[in-house]
Amino acid sequence: MDLHILDHRLRVISISKSGLVNFTHPLIKLIFLRNRTRCKFFSLTETPENYTVVLDEEGFKELQPSEHLKIESSIWLPLNVVSNGNASSSSQAVGVTKIAKSVIAPLAQQHVSVFMLSTYQTDFILVREKDLAVVITTLEEEFNIYKEVGGESVPMHCQDVSNGLQKNAIQPTVHPVLIPQNQFCVMSLDPDTLPSIATTLIDVLFYSSRFPADLLFTSSSGELWRMVRIGGQPLGFDECGIVAQISQPLADSDISAYYISTFSFDHALVSQIVLHH
Amino acid sequence: MDLHILDHRLRVISISKSGLVNFTHPLIKLIFLRNRTRCKFFSLTETPENYTVVLDEEGFKELQPSEHLKIESSIWLPLNVVSNGNASSSSQAVGVTKIAKSVIAPLAQQHVSVFMLSTYQTDFILVREKDLAVVITTLEEEFNIYKEVGGESVPMHCQDVSNGLQKNAIQPTVHPVLIPQNQFCVMSLDPDTLPSIATTLIDVLFYSSRFPADLLFTSSSGELWRMVRIGGQPLGFDECGIVAQISQPLADSDISAYYISTFSFDHALVSQIVLHH
Repeated sequence: MDLHILDHRLRVISISKSGLVNFTHPLIKLIFLRNRTRCKFFSLTETPENYTVVLDEEGFKELQPSEHLKIESSIWLPLNVVSNGNASSSSQAVGVTKIAKSVIAPLAQQHVSVFMLSTYQTDFILVREKDLAVVITTLEEEFNIYKEVGGESVPMHCQDVSNGLQKNAIQPTVHPVLIPQNQFCVMSLDPDTLPSIATTLIDVLFYSSRFPADLLFTSSSGELWRMVRIGGQPLGFDECGIVAQISQPLADSDISAYYISTFSFDHALVSQIVLHH
Repeated sequence: MDLHILDHRLRVISISKSGLVNFTHPLIKLIFLRNRTRCKFFSLTETPENYTVVLDEEGFKELQPSEHLKIESSIWLPLNVVSNGNASSSSQAVGVTKIAKSVIAPLAQQHVSVFMLSTYQTDFILVREKDLAVVITTLEEEFNIYKEVGGESVPMHCQDVSNGLQKNAIQPTVHPVLIPQNQFCVMSLDPDTLPSIATTLIDVLFYSSRFPADLLFTSSSGELWRMVRIGGQPLGFDECGIVAQISQPLADSDISAYYISTFSFDHALVSQIVLHH
């Protein structure tokens, strides 16, 4: 399989619930007026705690410093696993389950913190830029690793890793989990249809209105998902192994799962049928 | 003809060019999320000087006080002339020309300041609430006057006007006029199609992009108009007779004209064919 290190240098920030209105202008620009900004990677997740925004450095410039903004100090790089036809895994599961054993577990073993962003199409594994050498050394046995630079995919090879690889067993902290009653739908949207639902999305985003059930999307699994929120207290960004702790047992049972990290907590989405068993 | 005093108590404000971004949230709400606000009358005019916003008291509450906001202290009421079939005027002209002799001139003679807002469908004549008695007394000879109250049209009659009617000749100040090279198009938009062009309008409003020529509108005269801007220095709100000064000669020649007052200047739109003669 191939692992691509995408050409984005990302920041992870949170916006407080009450502070969102102050960011109406840059957020509308980042979400709806893509040709007005040089931002190429943007993710926004609303949770009861806050809004988590992941965006590249060009997008980050659009946000004025404010008391409502919390900024994680690192630069994060998104990794993306691409099956190249002869995928070794026979799993039918989607999401983080597919990469649990090949990516998540080895990185956890090397004490590399990861920040996960699952989407309908793919899963982005964000790692700190300073951990990149360890990441490559850890994963190059299993993957062909490419770094995307200006649209080109450049093969990456073993770098001298000064701090050496570790083979420590993970000693994970046991975090309390919360399973809210909400059901979730995972959808994908054709970017061209975004303008036509702009006012609806603005309404959902800035006025917390319900997401209309009749919105037409290009694709949706139709399946409903339940969320498992990991962490009783905000997790922070330095603990490793949390994603592995959740994704390993799901992978062992071949259960599909999406995984979304936010500024305060981690969230796994699993099929609600699974949860009832 | 009928004159309706509409059931809106309006404020006239200006937002500085540089301050607009600070009002992204309330403006998007007022323009696109009509069910999120109780505002029933909203007008926004961009000029090179600033943005003029006319809106009712419910809408006015959405705008936080700011150094970028200038507020005219009066409450203004919009008047609307409705031809009831047997209109006395044989004029084919549209806009302010139709009401120049019957409304604008008599009000100017009584030293009543008016703030004009022409639209594709109709012309709103805004008068100060404190001038209402003079307005009714002045116009009730020519019009059946109705006050709209909670959806009902209530006939209005002569009130005791303490300050009495004047019959002074207008001594208008001669203001310099500016005729920019721009051509203007006057259009009307079905409110239902507003969401579908929201991102385009947001782009035009907040990023001064060009208005796309291919936007579909329900109606447009197709005609191009030229603007005559009245005033070298900002006009203020207390001088009367400016609209009359412009609209009277146009009415004498039966020339269609739209008229748009803003915080700083008045603007007449006349057919560009007329202007060349």
